[in-house]
Amino acid sequence: MSEETAEGETDDRRDGNGDGTEGGPADDEREYRQVLEAVRDRVDPDPDERERLREVADRLAERAESAATDRCPDADVVQVGSTARDTWISGDRDIDLFVRFPPELDRDTLEEYGLAVGHATLPEGHEEYAEHPYVKGTVEGFDVDVVPCFRLESATDIRSAVDRTPFHNSYLEARLDEDLAADVRVTKQFLKGIGAYGSDLRTRGFSGFLTELLVCEYGGFRPLLEAARDWHPQVELDPESHGQASFDDPLVAIDPTDPERNVAAVCSAANVARFQHYAREFLAEPAVEYFEPAAPEPLSPEAFRAHLERRGTTPVAVRFDAPDLVEDQLYPQLRKSLDGVTTGLDARGFDVFRATAMADDAGVLLVELAVDERPAVERHEGPPVHVQGHAAGFYEAYDADPDVYGPFIEGDRYVTEREREFTTAREFLESERLFDVGLGAHVETALEERYEVLVGAELTGLLEEFGTELREYFEPTP
Amino acid sequence: MSEETAEGETDDRRDGNGDGTEGGPADDEREYRQVLEAVRDRVDPDPDERERLREVADRLAERAESAATDRCPDADVVQVGSTARDTWISGDRDIDLFVRFPPELDRDTLEEYGLAVGHATLPEGHEEYAEHPYVKGTVEGFDVDVVPCFRLESATDIRSAVDRTPFHNSYLEARLDEDLAADVRVTKQFLKGIGAYGSDLRTRGFSGFLTELLVCEYGGFRPLLEAARDWHPQVELDPESHGQASFDDPLVAIDPTDPERNVAAVCSAANVARFQHYAREFLAEPAVEYFEPAAPEPLSPEAFRAHLERRGTTPVAVRFDAPDLVEDQLYPQLRKSLDGVTTGLDARGFDVFRATAMADDAGVLLVELAVDERPAVERHEGPPVHVQGHAAGFYEAYDADPDVYGPFIEGDRYVTEREREFTTAREFLESERLFDVGLGAHVETALEERYEVLVGAELTGLLEEFGTELREYFEPTP
Repeated sequence: MSEETAEGETDDRRDGNGDGTEGGPADDEREYRQVLEAVRDRVDPDPDERERLREVADRLAERAESAATDRCPDADVVQVGSTARDTWISGDRDIDLFVRFPPELDRDTLEEYGLAVGHATLPEGHEEYAEHPYVKGTVEGFDVDVVPCFRLESATDIRSAVDRTPFHNSYLEARLDEDLAADVRVTKQFLKGIGAYGSDLRTRGFSGFLTELLVCEYGGFRPLLEAARDWHPQVELDPESHGQASFDDPLVAIDPTDPERNVAAVCSAANVARFQHYAREFLAEPAVEYFEPAAPEPLSPEAFRAHLERRGTTPVAVRFDAPDLVEDQLYPQLRKSLDGVTTGLDARGFDVFRATAMADDAGVLLVELAVDERPAVERHEGPPVHVQGHAAGFYEAYDADPDVYGPFIEGDRYVTEREREFTTAREFLESERLFDVGLGAHVETALEERYEVLVGAELTGLLEEFGTELREYFEPTP
Repeated sequence: MSEETAEGETDDRRDGNGDGTEGGPADDEREYRQVLEAVRDRVDPDPDERERLREVADRLAERAESAATDRCPDADVVQVGSTARDTWISGDRDIDLFVRFPPELDRDTLEEYGLAVGHATLPEGHEEYAEHPYVKGTVEGFDVDVVPCFRLESATDIRSAVDRTPFHNSYLEARLDEDLAADVRVTKQFLKGIGAYGSDLRTRGFSGFLTELLVCEYGGFRPLLEAARDWHPQVELDPESHGQASFDDPLVAIDPTDPERNVAAVCSAANVARFQHYAREFLAEPAVEYFEPAAPEPLSPEAFRAHLERRGTTPVAVRFDAPDLVEDQLYPQLRKSLDGVTTGLDARGFDVFRATAMADDAGVLLVELAVDERPAVERHEGPPVHVQGHAAGFYEAYDADPDVYGPFIEGDRYVTEREREFTTAREFLESERLFDVGLGAHVETALEERYEVLVGAELTGLLEEFGTELREYFEPTP
């Protein structure tokens, strides 16, 4: 690590300095270094761990290359991903081998060869399906993927997302020196600590590739945090200055191998804000805690009841059997369903205060209501009296109806007060109308099968399965 | 009355024909005529009543003219108003004498002479103050006003509203024949029957002058109703085709003596719609009931409780000592206060379902709430995280506050959930914050003195004073 203690911004590519105002710059710097050392102790793989991984990876790569060239003399194998680039965190055990075939090969043959090479490399492995099939297996404790792809001239020629990976790998390998790789590991751990790491659709955070790109672009962990502290979204990075498309996302990092792709497309506004928040907090007062993912104790029934009492709201849960989907499919559907339920409740006057979705064996749409009861009547505005036929029809229909108040006149319109369809949120959620709100397709199917509505203290029954999620909900942090 | 029975529209100035579809045109026409006869029996003053009024009015006019010319030889006296034009309804007892002085006279002298003439005419009379002072008294059961004004060349030269009255009078006298005058009486009674008669600021309906103008313009009661049936506001009448200003009002009747004045300015959209509604109803099925003002029985405590039960809402009343104001001052203040209270409640999440104001000895602002309780917490959105100083200030302030939930991040913002100031409508209405909502000035003063808040069944205490108003509120009609 650089050891300068000069104040203010610096051109050094790796290490700006904190602008702490307490304890003096030298103290601040010492504190920062101590924290970073502790973190590196934790995240840097030791020589043994490295050696073991290297040995296994090389052996498997050789085996794969031999099996590949047997079938297609022009094939080769590249190791990709964080373990190939030394940006993996101690304890990570992913080895990714990409088997590249010439682009002249047709896709069917590529898949056939790919699987054959995979099985030859990982005799115990099994097939999985992403954009196309590949083989996954475990070797000496490492999780190994053997993925076939095309070897192309340019990343813009790619036929599927996996073809892009080798280009990313070369791009980063050319730019990551030992210090930057070390800072990538620290940054990843920081993002894990604050809950913003991962481009899966549950987290919608920072992917590994995005993290490496940001560290390269800003020149290290500390300059990245110092920049993030001052970010004003939309933040746009374009390492190759070749961006061609425009994006709505709060963070835009143009893929150095593809001018039309935003590497940060999946990263939510909340995670960008979260990173900015914790960058400020950490730089102001460095601590190892920021690198430690929160592991909240499940909420106890007593604490749950205390929150209910203190908040005075009415939490309502729709619980169903979680559809059997991978998280990247499940969470978007849960969010869509939660939006639908929220909109449906709000439209009926049941004010939603906050809401969240949870899934384990059960799926849960949790809506916390500020208003869970409405009166027995609702206003029903008719047409302006001057709209001839329509007005007369409205008046006659409701004048003859003993169950409505009115019609009377307000402003230029007929108004009646009629019986409200649902006077409690529970009635609405237990009715067929729940299926009109725009649910995710698989969630809808699951609800058609079976669901139950829990209100208020009945949610205590969720604590066993979702105690952690409920603590996060009721004791929210940035 | 015209006796044609031809179907459809007619050019006859007085009498179109109903286009009833039941019972045949001849039956409809017979029914219509029978109803009209019954109404005219009720509203037309009989010869005796006329004779008595004429005798008193002439005697007082002579007395006034003599007293006026004593002081100013160029003065004269005109009888104005409905009793002068034969458009008064049997039982009306208003005699209006306007004493006109030449415009050269200065205002002080006009007022002095005017009061002197008034007292000479009405020895038992007393002074009242409108735009300027006049004398009011009772003579043989008639209510007599003696009002001084300037005699001007043109109504556009007027110096105060009273100067306009003689011009209105001449305009109508020149146009109202006996049949039209009879139709004015019928129309006035119809407007009284449906509750839309009177340009006072409590009613905001059709003034006498407007009624006469409408009957003249459309050629009678029936053609007026037939036209109103098809009105599509904004409805604009300009008898003298000299209108110069534009108006927002739903009904515009340009003053025939003043191109910049809308005679119907005070007429509310609801009263225009009401007139249209009842015109349709009456023409479809004529009945004398339309000419009989509703005189609802006061709401009983049992009926009140039944409405509470059936509606499931929470009525809340602010009761205070009514300020000592004439209705034209009081009602605009009550409406302003009611708007303010409604806005204040809505802004705090207490959804107002419907509302009204009432006044007798007490003033009452009645707001019926769909939601009268809110949870103990409220959302408090902070700045976007990227707004440097502001965001940091918000975070630090609330992070240190043990009484809030959060700050947490939603989208790009900090959000906290903090204690709500008022969890019931009563708390808000009983607090000092009630005085921030924009009350009418005299209502505010009255509330500063004393008020009480009644909720739900406590409103039973209003039934004695406001039983009729509460029936109209809970059993609304067009």
